[in-house]
Amino acid sequence: MNIRIINIGDELLIGQVINSNAAVMSEMLLKNGFFVDRTVVTGDEAAAIRQEIDGALHEVDAVIVTGGLGPTKDDITKKVICDYFHTTLRLDEPTYDFVARLLGSRGMAMTETNKTQAMVPVGADILPNRLGTAPGLWLEKEGKVLVSLPGVPFEMAGLMREEVIPRLQRRFKPGEHYLCRVVQTIGIGESYLSDLLEPWELSLPPHIRLAYLPDSGIIRLRLTGSGPDPDRLAREMEAQVEQLCALAGDYVFAKEDKKMTEVVASMLQERRQTLSTAESCTGGFMAHQITSMPGCSAYYKGSVISYANDVKQRVLQVSASDLENKGAVSQEVVEQMARNARELLQTDYAVATSGIAGPDGGTADKPVGTVWMAVASARGINSRLCHFGPAGGRARVIYRATTTAMDMLRREIIALSSSTKTE
Amino acid sequence: MNIRIINIGDELLIGQVINSNAAVMSEMLLKNGFFVDRTVVTGDEAAAIRQEIDGALHEVDAVIVTGGLGPTKDDITKKVICDYFHTTLRLDEPTYDFVARLLGSRGMAMTETNKTQAMVPVGADILPNRLGTAPGLWLEKEGKVLVSLPGVPFEMAGLMREEVIPRLQRRFKPGEHYLCRVVQTIGIGESYLSDLLEPWELSLPPHIRLAYLPDSGIIRLRLTGSGPDPDRLAREMEAQVEQLCALAGDYVFAKEDKKMTEVVASMLQERRQTLSTAESCTGGFMAHQITSMPGCSAYYKGSVISYANDVKQRVLQVSASDLENKGAVSQEVVEQMARNARELLQTDYAVATSGIAGPDGGTADKPVGTVWMAVASARGINSRLCHFGPAGGRARVIYRATTTAMDMLRREIIALSSSTKTE
Repeated sequence: MNIRIINIGDELLIGQVINSNAAVMSEMLLKNGFFVDRTVVTGDEAAAIRQEIDGALHEVDAVIVTGGLGPTKDDITKKVICDYFHTTLRLDEPTYDFVARLLGSRGMAMTETNKTQAMVPVGADILPNRLGTAPGLWLEKEGKVLVSLPGVPFEMAGLMREEVIPRLQRRFKPGEHYLCRVVQTIGIGESYLSDLLEPWELSLPPHIRLAYLPDSGIIRLRLTGSGPDPDRLAREMEAQVEQLCALAGDYVFAKEDKKMTEVVASMLQERRQTLSTAESCTGGFMAHQITSMPGCSAYYKGSVISYANDVKQRVLQVSASDLENKGAVSQEVVEQMARNARELLQTDYAVATSGIAGPDGGTADKPVGTVWMAVASARGINSRLCHFGPAGGRARVIYRATTTAMDMLRREIIALSSSTKTE
Repeated sequence: MNIRIINIGDELLIGQVINSNAAVMSEMLLKNGFFVDRTVVTGDEAAAIRQEIDGALHEVDAVIVTGGLGPTKDDITKKVICDYFHTTLRLDEPTYDFVARLLGSRGMAMTETNKTQAMVPVGADILPNRLGTAPGLWLEKEGKVLVSLPGVPFEMAGLMREEVIPRLQRRFKPGEHYLCRVVQTIGIGESYLSDLLEPWELSLPPHIRLAYLPDSGIIRLRLTGSGPDPDRLAREMEAQVEQLCALAGDYVFAKEDKKMTEVVASMLQERRQTLSTAESCTGGFMAHQITSMPGCSAYYKGSVISYANDVKQRVLQVSASDLENKGAVSQEVVEQMARNARELLQTDYAVATSGIAGPDGGTADKPVGTVWMAVASARGINSRLCHFGPAGGRARVIYRATTTAMDMLRREIIALSSSTKTE
């Protein structure tokens, strides 16, 4: 069976907000055996919303709509649904009570505007929203299902998990099973990898497909398989992943869809080792990537973001003469940053970055995108110079420097483990 | 005239990659007077791509497609276009030369696979891509335009700016002019703000629309206007923004679509004052938000991310007995973090956070979402306790703590300026 997603909102259509809901929903649905055939964004306009709902209900078995359920005048989804299903709104007492309690707990009173949140189409099943004031709605017409959810990402995700997926599973039996596996490489270009993998790719059975997702130095290879027997499919996919990894060799850094920082985090956790960072051009992005992961306090102790040179000098004890003579973006400075952060924060490893993120600040010698990176460990210091170039702007330089520095750390952890084992 | 955007890629459809291209493209088009009627995501499947292109060319004047132009086997956009336009592929010499030079500059050789990047449909205008190997394509049929662009975000953005927008402007005269204005509030709920603004909202002329975009404590109010005379429209919109701000009063923190950190950055730059941060639960996200902005070194000196308690103690000189007796998430600790970061990094202001981002680590006393924040300035220390709750997870707690702490800084800068003026 196929599902279509329709995300409603002028803010999405005019590009003020990036539509992350579609990706989150598609992923949840696919994991549970439901395939999304298309996702569509429309504005807050009744005719367009109605046209998309109508078209979709003719082409697929279920349609999930998000957005337009708020209390304000631009929220028109309920009106469109009532028109389309030839029904009217009624006050839902349990929703009313819940909204009143929710507002009460925040010290707020129920207003006429809030009350509209408890108005629902006659004939709709109510999907209770524990995280906000707009409930989800489930309607059926001629064997097809229409679901309406609030657009607030975490409210939508809660309703998908707790209400929509279980109901879809009861209502439709997933037919084909889908399975995705991801293998990630770093350090090789897309066409070279494609040439390397070609003989194997051409031998793939028709129910397993390969896709390339290159992004900022990393290539995610995605294998998508389908079949009636989930166990058999899982075994087949595992065998293909092994063949792929044998061909791609050292370029592979993960056999799953994890960020580089997650890969490194698992390695540190397994070895009960600790990490600190000293960041100049990455400006806290390394720290943020690490501290986005729950449980990071087990291995991450902190960072010194030494954006200004006097902070490099005063807090990280970088030599004033090296800063003066070699410049902040130099091997000498980045190595001192790593070595001294490791001592100051008392960790097994320290990773440091110093570079020119742009768009300004480049010189003929050190153009925008020039980044020095260093890793300090019990073995000593390892440093590397990269030229990421200016294309893609400041965000891309910061991202690539973070990923590359974390890859250096990954290699250092492996090297240190094997040298320790040898001893 | 209307434009439709079609973003192609299984990775988008299955939720592996969030579709940021649609938002970037819509925004660029709207700024130049072109309205996007809908955005659609389809997978790498010829029939679906063809159906969407065909449907769109019947409904709108121009269709822009992204993705599926890479050198690998899952990239089929050019094949679909050739079928649809009854044409074939030819080798484009300038593209071939450019790709060869680009690869050469990276020390790589031209392969058969790379050569396919220079194959283009006969009859298509080539839009040179300075940032990558796949050129854009421009085709026309029965007065309608089809544009095909690579899916790599910065390559797409470069081609939109340098090729597509100028060509659209020559080809179609933008009819109606569109203008968006954004006013942002913090500290008031959506329905209360809606009640406050209702009399004014009901008096808006039909060509100006209001929309509410609530997200994590902040509400973005978007006014969208259209009309034939851009100057008159700008004046009308300005007058409406003033009325809105008069009603919303102190809740307004920006009259444009800027992040809170950008608002604060401008204030610091104007006053030539400096900032440092000391982060525990926000873990570098404050630093990252600030250092994402070009030119931040003018006012931002750095941060101490003291994730571990011994780093709070050793680097930020937080009292060991306060850490022991009051806990890391306490008024005492966060105030010392702010005060000592201001001294250590020698800045005019320092902002500190300490809280429980979750999902683990909460207690009955201090549940997940509990965050202490402090701002240190020449006037002394200001601190505040917030309960953001666990809903929305770790990322939301980190985001709300960052925004709220930056709002505290904003108010402190204003208070300090006015007290200085009075003296």
